[in-house]
Formats: sequence, structure tokens, C-alpha cells
Amino acid sequence: MAKTKIEQTIQIIKDQISNKSLIAGSRLPSVRQLAAQLNCSVSTIVEAYARLVAEGILESRLGSGYYVLGKTDEILFVEPETQYQREIDPLWISRQSLEAKNEVLKPGCGWLPTSWMPEHSVRKALKQAAKSDAVMLIDYAIPHGHLELRKLIARKKELYQLKSQLNQIMITDSATQSIDLIFRYLLTAGDVILIDDPCYFNFRALIKAHHLKAVAIPFTKNGPDVEKFEQALRLKPKIYLTNSGIHNPTGTVISLQTVYQISKLVEQTDLMIIEDEIFADFEYTPAPRYASFTGFKHVIQIGSFTKTLSAAVRCGYIIADPKLVESLIDLRIATNFSHSFLNAEIIYQALMDSSYPKHLDWLKKQLLKLTNEMIPKLSRLGIRPWIIPTAGIFLWCTLPKGIQAAELSKLCLKYGVILAPGNSFSQMDEAGQFMRFNVTQCVDKRVFDTLEMAIQQLKTH
Amino acid sequence: MAKTKIEQTIQIIKDQISNKSLIAGSRLPSVRQLAAQLNCSVSTIVEAYARLVAEGILESRLGSGYYVLGKTDEILFVEPETQYQREIDPLWISRQSLEAKNEVLKPGCGWLPTSWMPEHSVRKALKQAAKSDAVMLIDYAIPHGHLELRKLIARKKELYQLKSQLNQIMITDSATQSIDLIFRYLLTAGDVILIDDPCYFNFRALIKAHHLKAVAIPFTKNGPDVEKFEQALRLKPKIYLTNSGIHNPTGTVISLQTVYQISKLVEQTDLMIIEDEIFADFEYTPAPRYASFTGFKHVIQIGSFTKTLSAAVRCGYIIADPKLVESLIDLRIATNFSHSFLNAEIIYQALMDSSYPKHLDWLKKQLLKLTNEMIPKLSRLGIRPWIIPTAGIFLWCTLPKGIQAAELSKLCLKYGVILAPGNSFSQMDEAGQFMRFNVTQCVDKRVFDTLEMAIQQLKTH
Repeated sequence: MAKTKIEQTIQIIKDQISNKSLIAGSRLPSVRQLAAQLNCSVSTIVEAYARLVAEGILESRLGSGYYVLGKTDEILFVEPETQYQREIDPLWISRQSLEAKNEVLKPGCGWLPTSWMPEHSVRKALKQAAKSDAVMLIDYAIPHGHLELRKLIARKKELYQLKSQLNQIMITDSATQSIDLIFRYLLTAGDVILIDDPCYFNFRALIKAHHLKAVAIPFTKNGPDVEKFEQALRLKPKIYLTNSGIHNPTGTVISLQTVYQISKLVEQTDLMIIEDEIFADFEYTPAPRYASFTGFKHVIQIGSFTKTLSAAVRCGYIIADPKLVESLIDLRIATNFSHSFLNAEIIYQALMDSSYPKHLDWLKKQLLKLTNEMIPKLSRLGIRPWIIPTAGIFLWCTLPKGIQAAELSKLCLKYGVILAPGNSFSQMDEAGQFMRFNVTQCVDKRVFDTLEMAIQQLKTH
Repeated sequence: MAKTKIEQTIQIIKDQISNKSLIAGSRLPSVRQLAAQLNCSVSTIVEAYARLVAEGILESRLGSGYYVLGKTDEILFVEPETQYQREIDPLWISRQSLEAKNEVLKPGCGWLPTSWMPEHSVRKALKQAAKSDAVMLIDYAIPHGHLELRKLIARKKELYQLKSQLNQIMITDSATQSIDLIFRYLLTAGDVILIDDPCYFNFRALIKAHHLKAVAIPFTKNGPDVEKFEQALRLKPKIYLTNSGIHNPTGTVISLQTVYQISKLVEQTDLMIIEDEIFADFEYTPAPRYASFTGFKHVIQIGSFTKTLSAAVRCGYIIADPKLVESLIDLRIATNFSHSFLNAEIIYQALMDSSYPKHLDWLKKQLLKLTNEMIPKLSRLGIRPWIIPTAGIFLWCTLPKGIQAAELSKLCLKYGVILAPGNSFSQMDEAGQFMRFNVTQCVDKRVFDTLEMAIQQLKTH
């Protein structure tokens, strides 16, 4: 694209700073001088100087002119280091995946490749949002959050036969933030919390940040082990945190019987179930939900739009008892003040567009196809799925005998492949031979080539 | 605007649901039937049905057609209640101001009226952002956050002779979230924290949420009382939280001598100063900063763009020691996972535009003019500023003798005027006769009329 005169002028000045012909503290020529020198209009120079002030490169001193600001040259042209080495802990996969450069392969990460996401819908929603009332662009949101988005969430929950009033719903900035707020309000350090084993590794990071005592309930192919769950109730846990739709990392869907058994147990206690709905939009047929059985007396639902719409537009929700929501709002004001009204508006616009359900249909078909193709590819390496999921993006697999997931992950990282070793998901450290694969991140043949080479290497040593 | 055929069809169906001619669970006519009936194309009906599915009003059952979803009619047309009554506590002003309907006057709130904000810049930035790389719109941000925004922040800090490397800066979703993260990492329940008296009321809400012991340091016309500060160091406080630029609520600017004295004291301890920069862009000439004296060994700077750009676009920052930043990033992943990449991009685009510094120039002139006009108006009511601020939006005032700020606030609320009573800002409950006014929210004559009437009423009772 051809540069405008203003952009050319800005580039000339930046070049002079970079080659030190203009050093920090130097006064720039007057607007008229430079206009004459560069043979352009005074207004061009005025705008160029104004933009350089906005960029923090020049400083305007009243009545005195423009000066090069501080050590601008050093900051302007430096690239930050992003080296980061650490032991495998619950944050290991997140940090590795978030820091990863483009050329790195990420079969271990928990999200879809950018190209699989509805980029068009997000851009369209953004343009729509640019036309909305100033209030949406400028002001704090009302305490419960974006009204129309709450209405939409309430309507969508009807699919699960779940009734919710608008004052039971609050908009947050993410599913993680939703859980964090609930933990902060309902729990204190040392409290007992039940989690699935295996479970989403960030649940473990969150529990650590809150200094809670996590008690792991083995997750079977039908959901949590009911007998173990009942035994654990003796420890007076305050919360059970789970994904009851599509379970992370196993891809399991909980059975109707299990939901019924657990619901009956929970109704006799003060325990709250937090039901994380983050993978709900990947489901073909809605799996049973705890909230549909017991209502919001014993269940809090949380969710977000990160997995199927955008992770850059932060938006999530909480559905709970209205009084609890009131208290959570107070806590949110104290600790975050407001959710992003604009993000909620963008999400709302994207969800309301007919292209989103169409995208979901396409996505679900792709996932099914890819999962079916991937199973034999893994089998050839001696890697076998623990269960064949009916929906979602994950395959929870056992590794060939003698291969440890942590070792394999460290080795593959050297070759530019980020894996998700089983024990990151296991409170009881009993998943050392398991690995979670994200099927959408395994399209590149190099994933399997690297796995094969690394497994061979580990076997011979 | 004329409705398209698709929109007309959607409206017809919504009307039928609203007047109960289509009840929950009803099957809709087939696409062909309805097209014939409404005399429009099949594709029009297909799109109308698809949008109603996206809106959560219809459900599509494979091979069977479209059905009205659950209790859609009830949720679709209900307006939520927003009644909220509570005692005056540190959250009172926030909740009242955030819940307020348009016709309510808010001289007590802490932000500018929407019309004072650079709406044009935000819209322009949003359109720019809609054209950015898919990564910005879809993906999680890198752990430290938006790189170019960090560079820009580093350059702008040069104005304060403040050197910062890019790995010292992390982007967050708000100033409040920045403080919250730091508290969570550095403090545990029961720790001692120093605050100014008076101070921003949400600092107090945050301290309460963290179960900290707040020790109040009287805030003089030159900044914190140095003698009292020195005495308080005996209690081994871990943090001193303050706005050193333009102080909230007093509008005071801290003196060079005070910064020097406090810096010398702090350097001999393990205390960290959190310097909240949220009002920095209102300054004519930069006031001294603690960070400029001692660097980031004893100071953490936090800030946001809420007051002068947008509160709907959530974006803030932390500048601190690089190791501390590393730990804060881990904590952020556990508790929020990521900041909003998109919001950071919008803020970056808006800041880089030359219209922003121009808007600030206009804003500062308006503020000065308004502050000067307001002082005599308040004086006529016996309300006098404690200090005449050199910049910013606040006037911290004493009320006429015998008038209590809490009573006046409760009375004015009945007349639709939300005030900010002094004790919300005072840990020591010593500001019962003070009131904070936001000059930008006092343009309407009714503010003064209501104040006059209410003061009269309180005097006669």
C-alpha cells in the first residue's frame, strides 16, 4: 500500500531517531521549517508530529516546540525475549502453549487453530458493534451485565429444560473468572473441594491459588465414581467442580443414572456443584446436566464463548441463585469493577447471527471426521483412546507400555511439539501413562512423525 | 429503516409467539409452506428460521423441522427489575451509580459523562481492529499481553523519567484487576496495608475482599502525613496503596518533598508502594512519582485507560520488577487465563491516533473552566473545597455546619441525585462532613437545586 505524505514524514523522523541523527532530547525543526524542507504542507507536518506525540515518540512542550522523548530509540526497536523454562506443573501446558511461536505444533493445547474459528462472524460482529450506542463503547456495564446477552443465554438454556430468570445470570469476562469469583465468595483457604480425576489442569492451578484441599473423585466412563463421591462427602466438601457436558480431558459424557445418583446425594448436603459449560456448543445432543435436575439451589453453571467464537474477546457467565449472584456482583465490583460491555456486545452480535449455528454444524462434522481419522493413526504408534468420545475436541489416550507421558512431552518439546501429559490433569498422579490430544491440532503429519521418533528414542534408552 | 423481508418474517413469528398463537413446543410450518403463505422466497424463510435458532427462539430438530423453544415467550419480553437498597458502605456509590437510569444525576460518580468521552476515537479504533490479523480477534494473548501496547506504555513513561523494560510490563483487563492480582500474590488475610485517608472507596472494598488490616495515613495538602507514615511502618505493613498523580478524592498533587521523604523511609523496609496511575492523563504537568525516585524495587505502577478513553473496553497494566511480573502472570493464568487481546488492540489503536492527545487537550481545558465555574456555585450553598485542585475531575468539599454527608446523600437519592458521601472514602470515619463532587457530572442546574432544597430540609429538621 502506498504511504501517505503523513506516513512518509513519520517514517523519516523514526529513521532519524533509529540512526541517531536525532537523539533523545533533540528539538525537532519547526512545523514550517520541516514543511519547506520536505516540500509538503504545514498541515501534513502538524499531523505527523501529533501522531508521533500519540505514539510516545515526541513530546510537545508548550510554546517551545517538539522534542524527542527519553530513551525512545531503545524501546522503539527492541524485541522482547520469551524464554521460559519450568518444571511440569498445572501451569506448564498453558504457559508453553501461550508462549508458542507460530511454527510450533500444539497437539496438547486446549483450543482450536485460528483458522477453525468463525473469523468472519467475529469481524462482522465487530463492525456491528462499532455502530452501537455510545453507551456500549464507552460506559461501564450495568452490574449484572449486558441485558440482551443474558436474555439470549436464558433462552438457549431452555434446550436443557433449564429455567433461569434474568437476575440469576451475570456476565463475566471468562469462564475462569467465573469460577474464581465463586471460589472467592464461597470458600476460604483450607476448605475441601471435590474434583474429577482426571480434570482440566487449570482447575488445579485455580485450586492451588486459593489454597484449597482438593479431593479427587475417579472419573469413570459414566461420570464421577458415585461410591467414591459418597465417601468423600464425609469430608464436608463445599464445592464439586466438574464439566458435565463434554468432560475435559476425557471427552466422556456423563450418564443419566450418574447425574441422578449424584443429585440425590448432593441434595442432602450443603455442597454446591459448579458445572462448567465451556464445551457445551460442541455437543450433538445435550448430555444431562445437574442443573436440569436440582435447579440452582445446588448447582451453579458457568461458561464462556472462548472455544467456539473467540478467546480474544473475553466473555463468560454465571447462572446461580439470585442472592448468590447479588453477592458475586459486589465481589466483582471490588475486584474487577465491571465486565467488558463491548466484548459482551460483540459476542451477542456474533451469537445472534445465523452464521454461528451454521459454523457450529460445520465444526461438529469436521470434528467427527477428524476424530475417526486420528484413532488409527495413533493406534499405529501404540497410543489408544481410553474412550471414543461422541463429541468435542479431545482424545484421552494411553501410551505404549513403558512410555511416560512427562518424558515424552519434554522430548517432543525439543522438536517443537507441545503435548499435554496426563499427570497435569491428575490430582492423584495416576495418569503418568496418559496423554490428551486435541484432534484439531493434529492435522499436521509432523505431529505423528515426531511422536513416532520420540517414542522410538525413549524405547531404546 | 425499512425492514428486509427476512426481518419482517422474523417479526411475524415473534408476534405470533408473543400473542400465544404459537406456544412453546409448537412446530412451525415447513420452509416451503411459509414461503408460499407469506409470498416470499424459500431462502428468505431459511435465513429467518436460522436467525431465530441463533436467537434461541426456535429449535431445529434434524429431519423434523423447527419448533418453538421452551418458555421462550416469557424470557423474550420480560424486563428485569433493578431495585437495590443497601446501607452506605464502600460499595454503595459504585452500585448506585452503575444501576442508575439515564434520568438520574450522578455528581457522586467517578467517571465522565458519555458525551465527554472520545466516542469518535473508540469507533475508529474498533473499525481498525476489525481489520487486524485474525490472531487479535480470535486467539488468547501472549502471557505478558499485547506487545505494541507495552512498547507504547514504556515510551509514555519516559515523560516521568521512568525506565521500564518490556518484560516489566503486563497488560491486564483493568486497574482494579491489576491491584487485585498484586494483593493476591503479595498478601495474605490479616496482613497490614497502608492507605490514604481519605482514599478511593473501592480500595476499601478491595481490602475488605482480601481481609486485610487497613491502616489509614491522613492525607495532607502535600500528600501522606510523613510522620504518621513513619509511625505506621512499625506495624510492618507490606503495601502502601495510593494515587500519587491526582489524588482521589481530594484532587491533591503530592509534593516533591513528600515523595522524597516517603521514598527514603520505604527504601529501608520491605514495603511495596502501589502507585495507581488511573488519573495520569488528566495532568497538565506530571506530578512527581514514587517510581521515578526508587525505580521498581519498591514501587509497582498500575493504571488503565478507563477515565479518558472507555470503560466498556477493559484494559489496564502493571509495571513492576520482572520476576514479580512472571509470578503475576502465572496467577493471572490460574484465575483469569488471559487478558482481552481485542480490547488491548482497540486501546492501542485509539491511543496511537492523533485525535487522542487533541481530545485530552480539549478535556483539560474544559475541566479547568468547569472547576472554576463550580466553586462559587457550591460556595453559595455553604459548600467549600478543601483544596483547589490543579487538574482532574474531583472537588473534595466540606458541607455547611451541621449537615452530615450520609444524610444528605440518602435524601438526595430520593430526588434522583447520587452523591459521594465523605465517609465512603474514610477508613477512620472522619469525613462525615465531606462530599466528593465530580465536576463533569454537575453541569445540570438540577444538581444545585436539589442540593439547596435538601440542605434546607435537613437544616429545618
